[in-house]
Amino acid sequence: MAELSGRTGVPIPTIKFYLREGLLPPGERTSPNQAQYGEEHARRLKLIRALVDVGGLSIVASRAVLGHLDSVGVDTLEQLGKVQYSLTQRREREQEDDDAWRAAEDQVEGLVERHGWTIRGDNPARASLIEVIATLHRLGQHDVLDLLDRYADAAEGLAAAEVAAMWARPSIEDRAEGVVTFAVLADALIAALRRLAQENQVVRTAAVGHTGGGPAATA
Amino acid sequence: MAELSGRTGVPIPTIKFYLREGLLPPGERTSPNQAQYGEEHARRLKLIRALVDVGGLSIVASRAVLGHLDSVGVDTLEQLGKVQYSLTQRREREQEDDDAWRAAEDQVEGLVERHGWTIRGDNPARASLIEVIATLHRLGQHDVLDLLDRYADAAEGLAAAEVAAMWARPSIEDRAEGVVTFAVLADALIAALRRLAQENQVVRTAAVGHTGGGPAATA
Repeated sequence: MAELSGRTGVPIPTIKFYLREGLLPPGERTSPNQAQYGEEHARRLKLIRALVDVGGLSIVASRAVLGHLDSVGVDTLEQLGKVQYSLTQRREREQEDDDAWRAAEDQVEGLVERHGWTIRGDNPARASLIEVIATLHRLGQHDVLDLLDRYADAAEGLAAAEVAAMWARPSIEDRAEGVVTFAVLADALIAALRRLAQENQVVRTAAVGHTGGGPAATA
Repeated sequence: MAELSGRTGVPIPTIKFYLREGLLPPGERTSPNQAQYGEEHARRLKLIRALVDVGGLSIVASRAVLGHLDSVGVDTLEQLGKVQYSLTQRREREQEDDDAWRAAEDQVEGLVERHGWTIRGDNPARASLIEVIATLHRLGQHDVLDLLDRYADAAEGLAAAEVAAMWARPSIEDRAEGVVTFAVLADALIAALRRLAQENQVVRTAAVGHTGGGPAATA
């Protein structure tokens, strides 16, 4: 375990915690006080860190994701779907059905139709999308919603490249891991890039220097 | 308070919690047991729910963001920057400087230069980006990193539309709120759209039906 810690930079108490929580499978026991940890353990440990630290997933959610990764078998498409669905953290909530929610449902239906997307009925990302759109309606921030199709176009363009890269991976295990990283880590990547691109854009379109007011061109 | 709860759908105990935690300013006291809550309270309450529930921000992080929103004054650009920076949750960690971290630093420097972005030295999103890239290096998932410039292009294209919409808002307060929503809520919007677009793309490029294996074209 000391060697595994040295190789991955993860402190021993943290490794013990992941073992106890069932995120990391136990090593092969070589004596009552010794266990052997191989390359697979190191790889899994790095993935756990990525999910928890960078992706911000809870221990419970990470365990579900890793469980699906481990059960990936031959039925590729079905299994990749299960891995992806496990990444969307569902909140238990009362069914909402105010005006904002119904408007959001209609908008998502229209968007999926306009883009010709094939989405299964049980994809939890659909409910997530409805929830964000309903929230924007409740906040009255319709200018964000005006960009909905631009966001969808960007997602679609990126998905083509991401899924091609995912299929190009050598094994089903690598592909399943790709489903996780092209979702969770790419989310974090895009969020950080958006912050930087937005700052650059604000600076470029603002009137003068770092003080004082409005934009050079508001349109 | 009962009226505020009715208007926003937020339960009274939750409102009391936000008041105690300093997320929601106290109402105007009209008698020892009565306080008046206005339109601004309803708006703030909805924003708190959006940050905490949809954005997944912690109470501490939400308080910081809302504090910056409240202190937005005349010095627009500086203030909008402060609001944006407060959205990036910094983890306290030891300075990392392994090979993966150094490679990531170089990549971010190159990317910012290639795209001609003007980014302040203290923008915390830079460190976030370095962290994600370093994590991908440690996981050996270089195919995700091959798409880095595509992600940056997408972020840049969206930022142009987002910042134009932000400037078009009528007041500095609305703009500052736009900085929050075009970051946090649009992150959630994009994440959900990406899941849907990815599923569509996987289904379209997979060989046959819902069972069985590989892609129609791997290239």
